[in-house]
Amino acid sequence: MSTMERAKERANGPLSRRGFVGVLSTIGAGMLGLVACGGNTTPTVAAGSGMSGVAGMPVAGGMPVAGGMPAASGMPGMAGSAAAATPVAGAALSADEMDKLHEAGIKAFPAKTAGLGGQPLAPRMEGDFKVFDLVAKKVQWEVEPGKLFEAWGYNGVIPGPELRVTEGDKVRVVIKNELAESTAIHFHGQMAPNAMDGVPFITQPPIKPGTNFTYEFVAKPAGTHMYHSHHNATKQVGMGLLGAFIVEPKDPKSRPPFDKEWTIVLNDGPQGFTLNGKGFPATQPFVVKKGEKLLIRYINEGQLLHPMHLHGMPQLVIAKDGYLQPQPWLCDTLTVAPGDRWEVIVDATEVGTWAFHCHVLSHAETEHGMFGMVTALVVKE
Amino acid sequence: MSTMERAKERANGPLSRRGFVGVLSTIGAGMLGLVACGGNTTPTVAAGSGMSGVAGMPVAGGMPVAGGMPAASGMPGMAGSAAAATPVAGAALSADEMDKLHEAGIKAFPAKTAGLGGQPLAPRMEGDFKVFDLVAKKVQWEVEPGKLFEAWGYNGVIPGPELRVTEGDKVRVVIKNELAESTAIHFHGQMAPNAMDGVPFITQPPIKPGTNFTYEFVAKPAGTHMYHSHHNATKQVGMGLLGAFIVEPKDPKSRPPFDKEWTIVLNDGPQGFTLNGKGFPATQPFVVKKGEKLLIRYINEGQLLHPMHLHGMPQLVIAKDGYLQPQPWLCDTLTVAPGDRWEVIVDATEVGTWAFHCHVLSHAETEHGMFGMVTALVVKE
Amino acid sequence: MSTMERAKERANGPLSRRGFVGVLSTIGAGMLGLVACGGNTTPTVAAGSGMSGVAGMPVAGGMPVAGGMPAASGMPGMAGSAAAATPVAGAALSADEMDKLHEAGIKAFPAKTAGLGGQPLAPRMEGDFKVFDLVAKKVQWEVEPGKLFEAWGYNGVIPGPELRVTEGDKVRVVIKNELAESTAIHFHGQMAPNAMDGVPFITQPPIKPGTNFTYEFVAKPAGTHMYHSHHNATKQVGMGLLGAFIVEPKDPKSRPPFDKEWTIVLNDGPQGFTLNGKGFPATQPFVVKKGEKLLIRYINEGQLLHPMHLHGMPQLVIAKDGYLQPQPWLCDTLTVAPGDRWEVIVDATEVGTWAFHCHVLSHAETEHGMFGMVTALVVKE
Repeated sequence: MSTMERAKERANGPLSRRGFVGVLSTIGAGMLGLVACGGNTTPTVAAGSGMSGVAGMPVAGGMPVAGGMPAASGMPGMAGSAAAATPVAGAALSADEMDKLHEAGIKAFPAKTAGLGGQPLAPRMEGDFKVFDLVAKKVQWEVEPGKLFEAWGYNGVIPGPELRVTEGDKVRVVIKNELAESTAIHFHGQMAPNAMDGVPFITQPPIKPGTNFTYEFVAKPAGTHMYHSHHNATKQVGMGLLGAFIVEPKDPKSRPPFDKEWTIVLNDGPQGFTLNGKGFPATQPFVVKKGEKLLIRYINEGQLLHPMHLHGMPQLVIAKDGYLQPQPWLCDTLTVAPGDRWEVIVDATEVGTWAFHCHVLSHAETEHGMFGMVTALVVKE
Repeated sequence: MSTMERAKERANGPLSRRGFVGVLSTIGAGMLGLVACGGNTTPTVAAGSGMSGVAGMPVAGGMPVAGGMPAASGMPGMAGSAAAATPVAGAALSADEMDKLHEAGIKAFPAKTAGLGGQPLAPRMEGDFKVFDLVAKKVQWEVEPGKLFEAWGYNGVIPGPELRVTEGDKVRVVIKNELAESTAIHFHGQMAPNAMDGVPFITQPPIKPGTNFTYEFVAKPAGTHMYHSHHNATKQVGMGLLGAFIVEPKDPKSRPPFDKEWTIVLNDGPQGFTLNGKGFPATQPFVVKKGEKLLIRYINEGQLLHPMHLHGMPQLVIAKDGYLQPQPWLCDTLTVAPGDRWEVIVDATEVGTWAFHCHVLSHAETEHGMFGMVTALVVKE
Repeated sequence: MSTMERAKERANGPLSRRGFVGVLSTIGAGMLGLVACGGNTTPTVAAGSGMSGVAGMPVAGGMPVAGGMPAASGMPGMAGSAAAATPVAGAALSADEMDKLHEAGIKAFPAKTAGLGGQPLAPRMEGDFKVFDLVAKKVQWEVEPGKLFEAWGYNGVIPGPELRVTEGDKVRVVIKNELAESTAIHFHGQMAPNAMDGVPFITQPPIKPGTNFTYEFVAKPAGTHMYHSHHNATKQVGMGLLGAFIVEPKDPKSRPPFDKEWTIVLNDGPQGFTLNGKGFPATQPFVVKKGEKLLIRYINEGQLLHPMHLHGMPQLVIAKDGYLQPQPWLCDTLTVAPGDRWEVIVDATEVGTWAFHCHVLSHAETEHGMFGMVTALVVKE
């Protein structure tokens, strides 16, 4: 499969809302039908089940905070899913009220929001250079339906456009800074010459507001890499100045084969817990056919660890930071730490809609339902 | 060694209080005797050693908080060990006062508390199904002596009973929900059919209060897995709705041999930092004979990473999430992240009582002594 | 290369301030000259670039807090780099003001401070024992220029002196406690006899103030290990009672060859985020010649994970906790968790000054510039 074919597959990969709901309802019905074979499976409402929650226990507003919370915890949009009228914070929910909120989140998935980051940016050619033009600027970014955050992004999207080249390509990236502060880009993982390393006052002057800068290097090594700000980076990367930098191997046979691929950029900055710049239910699911091999590229641009758990099928870990592991190894939950890139292959043997989320549970669910780092892999017959 | 023999060993494994103190005092005396050969080893009280601590430094109430604290930090029982009359928080301790508190904690270990979770639940047979009955309900759980927390557990214990089957077994788990809110079970690591995956509104309706649900699947893959709530899970798993799900290999020769095994479930929810539902000094030590090989199964049901450090002997890491690593590898401190299961083998070559604890030190010790994620491995001649 | 030669190289390794600035300016000029080939690379000041930052966004005083902050966040010296007159906290910075602060930090690097920890302590011989004398005591420790903290250290330095022996050596460590509270030393990673394991009330009595204690054991296994307090350890290790314990292999051919070595002790206690007891710009860079192989020994004595990212060249991971990995593997960002020791080899193929820092960005940079866990590897022609 060529790069372009894969790129097309990738563009087609994210499921439309209509498509997903169709799949979910079909699978749901079929699968839920199976439940009956298990015995007493028809839930009946218990007397008193509408009573309040548990007194004295942490509620949504006082949930266990683990591994730190994004800075935005006091910002709008962090206190639950976007899907339904949110009850007053701190008020105990009845079981039915809670379930209704959970259901609304799932039904809203994948929720439509403005803006989609991480889409491939076709390079223009200048001689034998592949040239990518980036503009760093402010943008209002819709993380969940109706929840807008001020963000700083490349070309107005978060993550920035995916830059994709082949090992050995001559790469030129022209960055224009339209922010109110200086910036710089570090191509994390690429063995660029020192002057192209993107660290202000060590390898270059900062790129002042209103100016531009040109990075040039030969792409290597192959694999999953990233580009992001290296100036005031705690804030600038947190705000969204980040993107995937994918280097395809010169010899495709040098890496394990796959049919489709899915890049997942993790972040936990002021916009909350996000996958590719969106929080559930606005995250994108991915669809494969049974029998396909899916390459997942994890990129952690955040500051916390995120152990990513795919339900249903194991993940075969093949590469770290672009470098093949000496031998692939299997797991079902892969810890992705800040700065990490991991590549895994999922053999889509099991049909169904499979939950796929960070296993730091407070990054994925509140009493009001799933939020943040949750999506799904859909395996169709 | 057969499953049943191992199960028996396991039941015998946890040391009684009488047994441990005996071992400790014997070993302690013997080993401490050796100290004399090292030179000037007899501590003598220094003039002024009873003076107060260090002014201006963080004391117990203001200790470094690292990797987040459980939500219960404001709850009773979190501010030190349970062993002795606790001085007023914030008051500087003299060296002797501090040592007395530390000593009391060790002497109390293993402290008796009501309730012991994680014990094997014998299945009943229905045709060729191994059937396990679980009830999710509230329970007052004694984490340390006298420190009771409201918990939510399976069958009234935390962790829930250990469910143990063999690869290829037909498994049926009947869960009755006696909580005030809905729930669902995800058999994390098992390749169950989609409808049995336990995610409300994606693969099944929530299990309403007062109702039940039956899960059915064929056990695979082998190894150390877990079952836990997947509904309002940040809270429900934190509250204790979790347990070990162990799948023995169909062919025991497919995995490295061992003599005894110890499952350690880590959690860091509202009940504090716990090993198998208890905080030190109420954690259980484990006893092996010199020369035995001990399989340790780590299961992290919490939200923080816990690097588990066994003193005295290295850990041979053999499996992640049930899957054998391509080649075993050695370490002395193994980071167990949320959702992780790791299997390690310890070759019990060194006689003694070996401290065994999380190396995020604030999960294991305060100025008042050890607490939380601390236990011991005892190797007897 | 013999131990002594390596020790000498090591002593020479850390670059003097004069040497570093020379290298930096030379390289900087040379490398920055290359930038011109990339096109429009001369930054020009934009109209309005002097305007204020972004309203409503977190500023230095309200930066994203990730993975927890050291306890000292309220202490002096934590709120930015030490390099320049610090603007009023919370006031928005112009781009130029911000850049000036960043530049001042880089120009100050490596900043001179009193005290240098982690230097080799030559043992004295008693018969066939290598004997090391340590004193645990209070010290005023200069973490950044002018930022003094009360610390507790071995022999008045943080980290304590490096103790270096060869596998199979008989080791004796005599520790005198001049602190106001008891202490004890655990030789983390060494298979010492139980009585030498350093856990008060389990393997020995606490070492009271004014008294001493002698540890004796045969050094094994080889590799990168550590020694630190195991009494009131959350505080005592956080305060600085820690050091590297290096065991060279009896057969040097049993481990991969290297030319120079660099031990990096990470900590995140009351003194802030530190590399070898210092925060940027007072951290030490390391200099190698092109073509040399550099062994880096990471030791995490803190409570948070620190993914260490070296720019420019990959890290070949060869050992965990002293034990060789079954096969070396490559990465560019290596997560070092509490209690971990990792050994990596960097093949210094790329000339330049390479940033080297923790990739939890809030451990490395604020709006006021780099701080904390930042240093540089300098590769000279």
